[in-house]
Amino acid sequence: MADTDREKLEAALKTQGELVRRLKAENSSKEKVDAEVNKLLSLKEKLGLEDGKQKFVLKTPKGTRDYGPRQMAIRERVFGIIIDTFKRHGAETIDTPVFELKETLTGKYGEDSKLIYDLENQGGELLSLRYDLTVPFARYLAMNKISNCKRYHIAKVYRRDNPAMTRGRYREFYQCDFDIAGVYDAMIPDAECLKIVHEILTGLQLGDFLIKLPWEAVREELVGEKGLTLEMANSIAEYVCLHGGRDVIARLQADERLVGNSREMQDEQKSARAGLADLDLLFKYLDIMDISTQVQFDLSLARGLDYYTGAIFEATLLAPENAVHQDDGSAPGGVGSVAGGGRYDGLVGMFDARGRRVPCVGVSIGIERIFSILEQRSESHSVRTTETQVLVASAQKGLFDERLRLLKELWAAGIKGETSYRLSPKLLSQLQQAEQSGIPLVALLGTEELAAGTVRLRTVATRQEVEISRDKIVEEISKRS
Amino acid sequence: MADTDREKLEAALKTQGELVRRLKAENSSKEKVDAEVNKLLSLKEKLGLEDGKQKFVLKTPKGTRDYGPRQMAIRERVFGIIIDTFKRHGAETIDTPVFELKETLTGKYGEDSKLIYDLENQGGELLSLRYDLTVPFARYLAMNKISNCKRYHIAKVYRRDNPAMTRGRYREFYQCDFDIAGVYDAMIPDAECLKIVHEILTGLQLGDFLIKLPWEAVREELVGEKGLTLEMANSIAEYVCLHGGRDVIARLQADERLVGNSREMQDEQKSARAGLADLDLLFKYLDIMDISTQVQFDLSLARGLDYYTGAIFEATLLAPENAVHQDDGSAPGGVGSVAGGGRYDGLVGMFDARGRRVPCVGVSIGIERIFSILEQRSESHSVRTTETQVLVASAQKGLFDERLRLLKELWAAGIKGETSYRLSPKLLSQLQQAEQSGIPLVALLGTEELAAGTVRLRTVATRQEVEISRDKIVEEISKRS
Repeated sequence: MADTDREKLEAALKTQGELVRRLKAENSSKEKVDAEVNKLLSLKEKLGLEDGKQKFVLKTPKGTRDYGPRQMAIRERVFGIIIDTFKRHGAETIDTPVFELKETLTGKYGEDSKLIYDLENQGGELLSLRYDLTVPFARYLAMNKISNCKRYHIAKVYRRDNPAMTRGRYREFYQCDFDIAGVYDAMIPDAECLKIVHEILTGLQLGDFLIKLPWEAVREELVGEKGLTLEMANSIAEYVCLHGGRDVIARLQADERLVGNSREMQDEQKSARAGLADLDLLFKYLDIMDISTQVQFDLSLARGLDYYTGAIFEATLLAPENAVHQDDGSAPGGVGSVAGGGRYDGLVGMFDARGRRVPCVGVSIGIERIFSILEQRSESHSVRTTETQVLVASAQKGLFDERLRLLKELWAAGIKGETSYRLSPKLLSQLQQAEQSGIPLVALLGTEELAAGTVRLRTVATRQEVEISRDKIVEEISKRS
Repeated sequence: MADTDREKLEAALKTQGELVRRLKAENSSKEKVDAEVNKLLSLKEKLGLEDGKQKFVLKTPKGTRDYGPRQMAIRERVFGIIIDTFKRHGAETIDTPVFELKETLTGKYGEDSKLIYDLENQGGELLSLRYDLTVPFARYLAMNKISNCKRYHIAKVYRRDNPAMTRGRYREFYQCDFDIAGVYDAMIPDAECLKIVHEILTGLQLGDFLIKLPWEAVREELVGEKGLTLEMANSIAEYVCLHGGRDVIARLQADERLVGNSREMQDEQKSARAGLADLDLLFKYLDIMDISTQVQFDLSLARGLDYYTGAIFEATLLAPENAVHQDDGSAPGGVGSVAGGGRYDGLVGMFDARGRRVPCVGVSIGIERIFSILEQRSESHSVRTTETQVLVASAQKGLFDERLRLLKELWAAGIKGETSYRLSPKLLSQLQQAEQSGIPLVALLGTEELAAGTVRLRTVATRQEVEISRDKIVEEISKRS
């Protein structure tokens, strides 16, 4: 603070102090004294604040945020669409503790392990906050010796990462996972995972998107697991520059170097044929489900987590070239990944004393990024944060008991209703409350209506009122909701 | 392990090792070798395990548990009823981070502070896991300068307490809070909180219950805040032994010692009249809402948390003397508190630099205890863990693509459907899958049906089948669900 500003504040503080002392000496009314005392405190606080004297900081921890009612309303809508999709595909749901034994997480995340939150050793087990939902899921399967499971899990995970909150990157964030565990015929659960991503992104109306299979992972599978030479794999990377999907597979399958019948590379070519047959099968299923045109290979993608094996994918939103919602100034091309997943056949075995493997494939929806897109979009229009159907109001004093009696009847009938917590609120302020909260109906009670056994039902949007018999009010409100 | 057992195991291990070496030398099939290797590993592990050599323990942290699909299905039903109630009363919802700055929690819980989980200092802010949802709510109100709010918050909280898991006492557990913040006319929000507890406990069909107002708290309010002498307050405690509700108020109001007009105790008696008028008002509202008979004073109750001021209450389930559900052998009388709450008018001010007060009243549903009661009750019957409406099945090989095609059409129509992840599963195993998972319908595809453009729809419970035109199948399934 500049010295002159400080001097001004101190002078104002002195004057205000004198004023308060004078008012007290004059025995002024309590209201008057209180008002001036508040001004005095405010000045004192300002001076203290600027000196850095405030006792504690009122904030959420770094990289975290509260969800207010508006954000929660958006979140509920998004979760609703996602959970519906998971349930449509027959998934159960589970939940695991927010922390795990530290050793459960050890050795699963490679370099990223340094981002794990540890709990203080307060005498007892060493604990860490979960870093994702996949490792707890694998621990759950191994611990309960479950070899078949299709489940979703929506919960928060924790990473001591560098937050970038405007782009939806937090230290505490939701993950939204769907996984299929079990030994099944090739590529069937994998195809369903891609279908689920497609249904969710379509359902959320986020605009055009692409599901990309990183070429890196495909090549590694061919080289690492099937014995294809690195040279061969590299030589075919040229096809992938086409950014194609099924057409790339077709070209690879037609390439004599890969799938021919040369004597020297018999085994490698057999492996390549098997690997390509798997990818071909995947694309056949995607074709049947009408989603193959939105699935492509991509040279540039790579996924970090240690536990992935086999096919890995990532869904990205496309820049809306002709999009309507571009008035927020954000760079829609830079939205990046909104879902990802893949196969992790080895992870459960890491928890099993006998190394018993349970093959798994899953998808994780990048829900925080989706929230931040939808929050930005919703900034220009109102979002209802309650589901209240009717506000019970009165124009006259002393009718609180009557309002409460009507409300009780509405609640008993399952109708969502509110009334002012004031004994004698003004009619205008009640109508304003309804309008501001987006409550569509107001049930008006007055001495006339009470005598006649009726209620005036007002439609907030049109301001139209009808008089309705008290015993028909539940039916009438239900009909209009 | 007894020495003889150990010797037997070691001998078996030796023999098995020789078998594996021989099979490998003979170039036996991979399947055969793998099977024998697995047996070998299993023996090795058994020996290692018994020696206490197993590398790590596969468990959840002390005092925590996983929720499997069955528990989650119960949990979802319970949350559904509770959230419906909160929404019926016009509540919004918010969420806060699982951890807070350590100093945010300091000085709020008295003795219980030692039960707070701290995070390790990994360089940065000092953090603690939230201990309840009330303090984060107060922090949220103060931080955002909100003076009116009616919200619910359902989330996990953390206490390093002595767990008693069979009675639903965990170190990680859900809280389920509804609170009303704001300056309103006396006892109106308080009465609504009691009504909400009543609606939730009724809706969950937990049996008879009582909502108790601890006399201790009422007395403290009269003594501490209104100036009533301790002697006077104690002298009236006799009424409370009646375990009554409104009748106790009436008797107190008729007591000359309390509300009379003696010259020496004029102020005290004025205070007592005011305090009793508040309680009378509360019971009037409870009367209007038809719940006053289930609300009583209780001498034995006391609530621990530091931040409560004014009326405090607790809801307890009664022993089901003539109850139907008593075959589980549990002691139903000992269920104890399933909800609690009260007024905490000073808490928000503790976070405000100017000490600005926001009066609050709220209720917390003891959801873990409710879960454990309902889990015990559900042990004897099956609980569906998915919502799948139809299983698409086939009696013939090679029809996987056709199953997937039909499934795609069902999914597109919003129907919840599954099919086996096997290319050629046996019909019997498919029908068993439907029966075990409680899927009510099976859509059967065969070459005949495909040629005729039909589907056989089987009702699992009755085993009846009807042939339905393919273009009517969505309609038919929807009709039956």
